[in-house]
Amino acid sequence: MRVRRKHKKKQKVKNTSVNQIPGQVTYVGNKVTETPSVEIINFDREKVHRQDSKSVSDAFHYKGQDSITWININGLNHTKEIEELGKHYKLHPLIIEDIVNTQQRPKFDDYDDYIFVVVKMLYNDSQNEFVNEHLSIVAGDGFVLTFQEADGDVFDGVRERINNTKGRMRTSGSDYLMYALIDAVVDNYFIIIESLSDKIEMIEDLLFTQAVEDEDMTQEIQDLKREVLRIRKAIYPLREVINRLENSEHHLIDEKTHSYLRDLQDHITQISENIEIYREMIWGLMDMYMTTISNKMNEVMKVLTIMASIFIPLTFMAGIYGMNFEYIPELQLQYGYFYLWGAMLIVFFLMIWYFRRKKWL
Amino acid sequence: MRVRRKHKKKQKVKNTSVNQIPGQVTYVGNKVTETPSVEIINFDREKVHRQDSKSVSDAFHYKGQDSITWININGLNHTKEIEELGKHYKLHPLIIEDIVNTQQRPKFDDYDDYIFVVVKMLYNDSQNEFVNEHLSIVAGDGFVLTFQEADGDVFDGVRERINNTKGRMRTSGSDYLMYALIDAVVDNYFIIIESLSDKIEMIEDLLFTQAVEDEDMTQEIQDLKREVLRIRKAIYPLREVINRLENSEHHLIDEKTHSYLRDLQDHITQISENIEIYREMIWGLMDMYMTTISNKMNEVMKVLTIMASIFIPLTFMAGIYGMNFEYIPELQLQYGYFYLWGAMLIVFFLMIWYFRRKKWL
Amino acid sequence: MRVRRKHKKKQKVKNTSVNQIPGQVTYVGNKVTETPSVEIINFDREKVHRQDSKSVSDAFHYKGQDSITWININGLNHTKEIEELGKHYKLHPLIIEDIVNTQQRPKFDDYDDYIFVVVKMLYNDSQNEFVNEHLSIVAGDGFVLTFQEADGDVFDGVRERINNTKGRMRTSGSDYLMYALIDAVVDNYFIIIESLSDKIEMIEDLLFTQAVEDEDMTQEIQDLKREVLRIRKAIYPLREVINRLENSEHHLIDEKTHSYLRDLQDHITQISENIEIYREMIWGLMDMYMTTISNKMNEVMKVLTIMASIFIPLTFMAGIYGMNFEYIPELQLQYGYFYLWGAMLIVFFLMIWYFRRKKWL
Amino acid sequence: MRVRRKHKKKQKVKNTSVNQIPGQVTYVGNKVTETPSVEIINFDREKVHRQDSKSVSDAFHYKGQDSITWININGLNHTKEIEELGKHYKLHPLIIEDIVNTQQRPKFDDYDDYIFVVVKMLYNDSQNEFVNEHLSIVAGDGFVLTFQEADGDVFDGVRERINNTKGRMRTSGSDYLMYALIDAVVDNYFIIIESLSDKIEMIEDLLFTQAVEDEDMTQEIQDLKREVLRIRKAIYPLREVINRLENSEHHLIDEKTHSYLRDLQDHITQISENIEIYREMIWGLMDMYMTTISNKMNEVMKVLTIMASIFIPLTFMAGIYGMNFEYIPELQLQYGYFYLWGAMLIVFFLMIWYFRRKKWL
Amino acid sequence: MRVRRKHKKKQKVKNTSVNQIPGQVTYVGNKVTETPSVEIINFDREKVHRQDSKSVSDAFHYKGQDSITWININGLNHTKEIEELGKHYKLHPLIIEDIVNTQQRPKFDDYDDYIFVVVKMLYNDSQNEFVNEHLSIVAGDGFVLTFQEADGDVFDGVRERINNTKGRMRTSGSDYLMYALIDAVVDNYFIIIESLSDKIEMIEDLLFTQAVEDEDMTQEIQDLKREVLRIRKAIYPLREVINRLENSEHHLIDEKTHSYLRDLQDHITQISENIEIYREMIWGLMDMYMTTISNKMNEVMKVLTIMASIFIPLTFMAGIYGMNFEYIPELQLQYGYFYLWGAMLIVFFLMIWYFRRKKWL
Repeated sequence: MRVRRKHKKKQKVKNTSVNQIPGQVTYVGNKVTETPSVEIINFDREKVHRQDSKSVSDAFHYKGQDSITWININGLNHTKEIEELGKHYKLHPLIIEDIVNTQQRPKFDDYDDYIFVVVKMLYNDSQNEFVNEHLSIVAGDGFVLTFQEADGDVFDGVRERINNTKGRMRTSGSDYLMYALIDAVVDNYFIIIESLSDKIEMIEDLLFTQAVEDEDMTQEIQDLKREVLRIRKAIYPLREVINRLENSEHHLIDEKTHSYLRDLQDHITQISENIEIYREMIWGLMDMYMTTISNKMNEVMKVLTIMASIFIPLTFMAGIYGMNFEYIPELQLQYGYFYLWGAMLIVFFLMIWYFRRKKWL
Repeated sequence: MRVRRKHKKKQKVKNTSVNQIPGQVTYVGNKVTETPSVEIINFDREKVHRQDSKSVSDAFHYKGQDSITWININGLNHTKEIEELGKHYKLHPLIIEDIVNTQQRPKFDDYDDYIFVVVKMLYNDSQNEFVNEHLSIVAGDGFVLTFQEADGDVFDGVRERINNTKGRMRTSGSDYLMYALIDAVVDNYFIIIESLSDKIEMIEDLLFTQAVEDEDMTQEIQDLKREVLRIRKAIYPLREVINRLENSEHHLIDEKTHSYLRDLQDHITQISENIEIYREMIWGLMDMYMTTISNKMNEVMKVLTIMASIFIPLTFMAGIYGMNFEYIPELQLQYGYFYLWGAMLIVFFLMIWYFRRKKWL
Repeated sequence: MRVRRKHKKKQKVKNTSVNQIPGQVTYVGNKVTETPSVEIINFDREKVHRQDSKSVSDAFHYKGQDSITWININGLNHTKEIEELGKHYKLHPLIIEDIVNTQQRPKFDDYDDYIFVVVKMLYNDSQNEFVNEHLSIVAGDGFVLTFQEADGDVFDGVRERINNTKGRMRTSGSDYLMYALIDAVVDNYFIIIESLSDKIEMIEDLLFTQAVEDEDMTQEIQDLKREVLRIRKAIYPLREVINRLENSEHHLIDEKTHSYLRDLQDHITQISENIEIYREMIWGLMDMYMTTISNKMNEVMKVLTIMASIFIPLTFMAGIYGMNFEYIPELQLQYGYFYLWGAMLIVFFLMIWYFRRKKWL
Repeated sequence: MRVRRKHKKKQKVKNTSVNQIPGQVTYVGNKVTETPSVEIINFDREKVHRQDSKSVSDAFHYKGQDSITWININGLNHTKEIEELGKHYKLHPLIIEDIVNTQQRPKFDDYDDYIFVVVKMLYNDSQNEFVNEHLSIVAGDGFVLTFQEADGDVFDGVRERINNTKGRMRTSGSDYLMYALIDAVVDNYFIIIESLSDKIEMIEDLLFTQAVEDEDMTQEIQDLKREVLRIRKAIYPLREVINRLENSEHHLIDEKTHSYLRDLQDHITQISENIEIYREMIWGLMDMYMTTISNKMNEVMKVLTIMASIFIPLTFMAGIYGMNFEYIPELQLQYGYFYLWGAMLIVFFLMIWYFRRKKWL
Repeated sequence: MRVRRKHKKKQKVKNTSVNQIPGQVTYVGNKVTETPSVEIINFDREKVHRQDSKSVSDAFHYKGQDSITWININGLNHTKEIEELGKHYKLHPLIIEDIVNTQQRPKFDDYDDYIFVVVKMLYNDSQNEFVNEHLSIVAGDGFVLTFQEADGDVFDGVRERINNTKGRMRTSGSDYLMYALIDAVVDNYFIIIESLSDKIEMIEDLLFTQAVEDEDMTQEIQDLKREVLRIRKAIYPLREVINRLENSEHHLIDEKTHSYLRDLQDHITQISENIEIYREMIWGLMDMYMTTISNKMNEVMKVLTIMASIFIPLTFMAGIYGMNFEYIPELQLQYGYFYLWGAMLIVFFLMIWYFRRKKWL
């Protein structure tokens, strides 16, 4: 519970760019790192070279070579470095702005010399905390630039495949590397929505076994609603992004890559369908919870009704013979007390029989 | 109940292909067979030859003949065999991937030499358990390949018609066989959604007769919601698949087959409409259940109110004459006790009359 | 209630054509007649000839004449007769299949020589029972064929107009007769949805006067939901059918008929809008019912609360002076008993005042 | 309340045209007048002439003149007069039919010589009763014909502007007069939906102050739902009507009039958006009402619980010392009675404290 | 609470233009100022001149110069001044009408010489009150006119940037100034919807801690619904406005400005998505509140049931031995009283154990 609550605050729409000058580069996210971490991987069919650096300029000498250079920057608060890189690769000022604006929704823009894609990277990090990171990808001729908010990503599989001498990665262009990066992001969506499914089943089981503290559930379900709406917001625009990428006739994108993008489109559609299903299930949870509460109340009421209906008439009978009238004939009977007990038992069992017939007992 | 629960777990989205290399062939389903079962049926206008085998290579000698060969493979975990078959018939790597990826949603792809269709085969097997199987169909010139997850399918009718010397099947091409296979799948959808209808009516009857254990119904209805969402997910994409198949101008598809596909399109639309109706009915069940619970509580409350309202005043009256005041004039009356009984009976019948007028009795 | 229940069962989706060979002619409905009833009406500008027969062949001699022949067959289980008629008029096998397949949704197909329309004929028959009949219409040059499931239809107005020497019917072609038949079907939809409106108002009145047996209403409302969904399913596809008919450039359809079809289109749109309104009203009924139940429970609770709150304190007061302590000073007071009665009356009226102020009394 | 109920009945879909011959002119509404009232206004740049008559033929002599003639007929049950007018102005038979068919939804038809528009005139008349009148407008070269169900309309502003010598009306063609009439109708929609808003706020205030008779509210809200659905049905089709009018290239419609129609389109869109908002608010009222009921029940339950929880234990304590055991030591205590009172007060205040802490008191 | 209530009244649809002559200029809003306040800023690359005036004519001498003039008028009730300005800049009469009609929804119109945009300016003013102001912008060659209802706006950032000698503003045309103004308005939407988010979380927290006065919440949630619907109504049409602006090929709009408009479009889409999310959250609040009420009632019922179930049987036991039968054997027992206390304690603890097992205690 603690974790999600904290996360909720983090996700809140906070657009500190209000009243700013358009085109000004300011990081509006909240993941601040002290130094930028720059990862430079240069590879061609024969060799791979990987270098961790603190400065983007270390990568500049690769430009113009016939290899592919992947420059991955973690830490969007270091706007200086990003602007320097942008200048070197001649990126449009609005792109630089979008890179550091973590509020920017997923988008696709094609420029003459490169392709610009923004996606949301959703994953559970090593501490199993949910992370929603803003990821920008610029793919040009011979280079791919990726910009992340913080360390930690979902690209380990891609790195392995670059190291694999025989993989398709080494023989394909930067468009395939871009596809592989987006594919890795999308693959992680499956894990995220799977965890949604787990949470739904957990709440259903709690409701079913009724072993819950009542007050918590409403909040839990509302939080789940919020979560699925947020995930949907991060993922849905991607459908159009991939669609436009697939239909783009940009010279960078190879014919073979197009069929991979079609495949990716299929995955996104599948994820969207699953999100819709989970959304409907979550909305149903509230009804389920409501009926659970009502069923409990029914049970409480039955106990009260049974206890009261049995003992109130009996108490009345006892009250009758507690009266002080001068002449109450039954009181003089030798076994009057026992006769009354008999009558009380009859009433008692009639009541029990009645409630049994109504299936309340 | 047992059965559905088990089934629910089985259906969960489990995409173990996460972080895999695209194009890699790995079966992600959970229906594992020890050996692949390969069924080869070769037929032309004059003769039919049927052979059960463990190896796909037994079918290779039919290639190039002027007959139609239907190769049906059960067991998608035997990726080797599938890859061998794919190589022989020159299938695109992405097709092989889709064949074994049971998460793949229904799709249609036309290649130069063949048509590729993925559908979901929903049926109740011989143990009356619900089965959701991933079925891929490749139809080329003179051959149809079908890939199933496990033994057991809905194609017995098709097999019979192949054996029928005078049927249209024997004189038509592989496109008609493909159509017949999809038609058999779609026909079974009718049975599946009919069983949905039965379940809805069963729950309605239970709610109506109120002969149910309260706690179970919420879960039952939620499970039904889940089921209809899953069926919808399996069937809806098929509308577009058949639509594109019908409008495809692929050389394989004969003019006469087009009118059959139009007919199939009609069936799918009809099924979709029925699913929507059942969906709305199921969503209504929760409201129905809620009112049932409230009605029950109303009944419980009425019993309590009637019992308490009758006996609490009477007990008060008895209490009055149980007091020990020195001077209570009524106590000295000779027939005081009987007068009191009279007063109590009047109160009692007034109460009964009141509750009858309110229609609570 | 009885009637609708029976009807509900009748309407269930029952597709016995499962695993059948496509193109095979089998009647799947449940309205079986012993002999087919064939009604042949032949008319031109000067004369009308009407004949009831048991065999379709009686109509064959009209073919080729310059008159219009309307052949109306009741009894879709007599597939032989239908196939014979189909052969004579050269109907496509798929049309014959659609004629006897009562599951077929409304559709429009134009062939070179004739137009094929399927609609659902909804009406209340002479016993005021709701009837949903499958009606197929084939209109060609000089002939109109109609196929109904059973005797009884909505075409009496059309028959009268054929007999009317001066009506437009006698001077128009078969396209106008076809339009008149569909128009008669659509006109009856107004009556059907009007009865929906009546049922809604009846339930609203019952809920409002609260003079209902509680358990029944849930079922009634759920049945109404089902009914409106079924009617919608029968009527909605007709919108597209009429639209395509109106926009069709088939040589059979006269320019003047087009403006009548536009009018029909308007009617269908109006009916659809009314269905949507009734649908929303019906969905609102459940909420209305729920609040009615809650209001009733509130009333029950108030009675209980008032009775208990008044008499429990009084009983306590009586209990005090029923105690057997050696020394209770009040008991020795001469008018102690009457003082107590005074105190009790004060408590009683305080309570009454309190509940009145709360508007519970 | 009375008024709306009556109105509800009036609005019911009653299509007495069922089984009628298409093209036959029969009035199906329920506003019957004894004599038709014909208002003829003829004007050009210099002069205006206005005449009230009982016969349409009085207007025929204006035809062919270079002025604009507005003929406004009240009383659709006088079909003879309407047919006579139709003949004179060569109106299509289907137009005549639509003019008297009050069930006809808003529509636009352009013919070679004139434009035909049907709208619904919604307004509160002088007795403040809601009126839904069927209004047909035919605009041709030099004439505008309007057909209303009964006396009373929203055109007083238009009449004034015709009398205004300097207004645009006098210098524009019949298309501008037609626009002005529709604009007057649309302007009144604002008043109608404003009254919807008032009703919603009135119910909200009633629910908020909880000063309502419980049983009425459900019906009120359901009636409001019905009303908004009916208004929506009358207004929504107009969006398309105006849109088609605006995009029509009919020779009658002047370029300047187009920009006024664009403005009208804007108004209709704004009204539609407001209707949607009110619709959502009304649907929310039922939930609001439900929570109000539940809150009341909560209050009732609290009173009961507090009363019972306080006095039931005290009554038990009194009951203890009312027992007749031979040896009850407390009874012999000199101040036993007072000690008991002390104990009872302690229990009493403990209970009060407990309920206060729970915030129930 | 006070503030919003007041605001609600203010926002009501009040179209006093009903039955007015189209083209007549009347202010229908309710923000009346005594004198118009006219702010004139004239700037080019070298210099900026700013002047506050009461008359628009002070700005007329700038016309024809090679600088950009921004004339900002506060106070739409001064229609004379606005008409004078309109005459000077040759604005179309319908534009003048839209400028003063505060009911006008956001729109975009391009004329030959200028562009006309209407937007809604939503912001919290210095007293933190929500303001919904009607803002019209006319951008022509060398001038931008803005019309506001009252003093106070969101353009301070724009004014600063005009003063900044090195900003892009000084070197760009009037199209960029228009973009900057709209951008400032849109930026404030983020703040407005953020405050929505805060209100939702506040209500959720109140519901969660259950520290609320019950009666208020329904109203609060309903008000929130109304607010989100109103904001949506103000913002949604802007999507189309910006879209048409972006796609417009008007000579005024520079190629570079187009890419800024694309960016703005992105922002609007993002805001719309957030509104939808908040809308769904707000609709969920009512359910949340309902379950909270039900949970509270459950708690109340439990207290009642526990108290009654424990003490009613004990009272009955005491009642038994308060009876006055001649012969009750237990009464003669020496320690009878203490035995009874023992039995009572056993019953008491059995009850406690029972309720603990049910988790009610």
